[in-house]
Amino acid sequence: MTQALLMSSSRMGNLGYLEHAHDQIHRLLKQQQQTVLFIPYAAVAFSFDDFEDIVRPVFKSLGYQLKSIHHVSDPVAAVKQADAIAVGGGNTFALLKRLYDAQLVDVISQRVKQNELAYMGWSAGSNVATPSLRTTNDMPIVQPPSFKALSIAPFQINPHFIPGKPAGHNGESREERLNEFLTMNPTEELLALYEGSALFIEDEFGTILGEKSGLWFKAPNQRDEIAANQRFALNMIKGA
Amino acid sequence: MTQALLMSSSRMGNLGYLEHAHDQIHRLLKQQQQTVLFIPYAAVAFSFDDFEDIVRPVFKSLGYQLKSIHHVSDPVAAVKQADAIAVGGGNTFALLKRLYDAQLVDVISQRVKQNELAYMGWSAGSNVATPSLRTTNDMPIVQPPSFKALSIAPFQINPHFIPGKPAGHNGESREERLNEFLTMNPTEELLALYEGSALFIEDEFGTILGEKSGLWFKAPNQRDEIAANQRFALNMIKGA
Repeated sequence: MTQALLMSSSRMGNLGYLEHAHDQIHRLLKQQQQTVLFIPYAAVAFSFDDFEDIVRPVFKSLGYQLKSIHHVSDPVAAVKQADAIAVGGGNTFALLKRLYDAQLVDVISQRVKQNELAYMGWSAGSNVATPSLRTTNDMPIVQPPSFKALSIAPFQINPHFIPGKPAGHNGESREERLNEFLTMNPTEELLALYEGSALFIEDEFGTILGEKSGLWFKAPNQRDEIAANQRFALNMIKGA
Repeated sequence: MTQALLMSSSRMGNLGYLEHAHDQIHRLLKQQQQTVLFIPYAAVAFSFDDFEDIVRPVFKSLGYQLKSIHHVSDPVAAVKQADAIAVGGGNTFALLKRLYDAQLVDVISQRVKQNELAYMGWSAGSNVATPSLRTTNDMPIVQPPSFKALSIAPFQINPHFIPGKPAGHNGESREERLNEFLTMNPTEELLALYEGSALFIEDEFGTILGEKSGLWFKAPNQRDEIAANQRFALNMIKGA
């Protein structure tokens, strides 16, 4: 049974790093003693060491060990031996390129789908868990070999959802961007998650965690809400 | 001599479509009677016909005819016969994919560099005039065959520049995104343009048009201003 926790963001409001997500993380890791393998590849403006130093204390306070993959000589073997991985946020394009460079895309995807590996990601780490990075908010600062990603969720997710647009500027609102995705990809739908929300996946079912509903974008200017804390069949949302 | 006008945006403040840019457009087209070939491929949420209907009246009021490439049966031949093209804004990924699909990338790039074709673009139309789409603000809603673009400007441009970030949200500011680009691509610099600004290219020289300076991002957290209306050597800014 696939088990995955796809979080919109590392922070909610003024809370600390992953502070809003303690219960969400326990729900995936089940309070069992273990060492989580951390993937820091989305970090661009700071080092992998610094990223690990931000994340490790959070997991330690929850009773879990954490080790970053940049310390190991054979990343593929490390993924094969891991019981759980945590994929941190940052830039989605850098993250996916580095996953391809390290030949980790297929092995992560397969082990998660075969329920040999529990997957946790936030922000960019949730983007790469979908069929592709087509609904990331990030700048394409580097070109990955393909937009194709891990497909742990069978549909696209837009993290860090925020409605409307800043005043006095002519960029698009998030809704306009997602409408463009749905126009360009008319057979697909997507799930947008407010900061602090997450999609919890258990096999073929999903649950929105957090205080807010998930936003189910079905077509341009056509959307529904998915209530938090209620299981739904993942195939309710049309995927790639 | 290459002649190109790369505008940050189609609008400035509350002005109408391209209303701020009348003098900029005359500077490129030199008040000479001509038919401008319009490329509407960045349009996603509305039709190519609708896009042409927005843009044609602006050019007509300035004394120029305009015809959209989506009416012609042979787009490559149309580009070969044109004296000037205008590439409208919208989604940069859709635009570049459609330019590749129509086999227009090389022919536009070569004709502009050989001074056989004057180039005008705004927003996405300026992004694709640089070495790649790595500094677009747009969502990657569709995958082009490559990020490589027209290379009319020898360095990356970030259009629609706006400082800071919206309150209460944990996304990155524009400066943070551009810092990430510069961190990931340490041999390159870039030019950010506020809305209403443009880069005017004459052969190996550039001039910032509009009321505001251009922003020359040299390295993470290191930037300079380039004053408006003063020629500078384009190779001052390190390109790809």
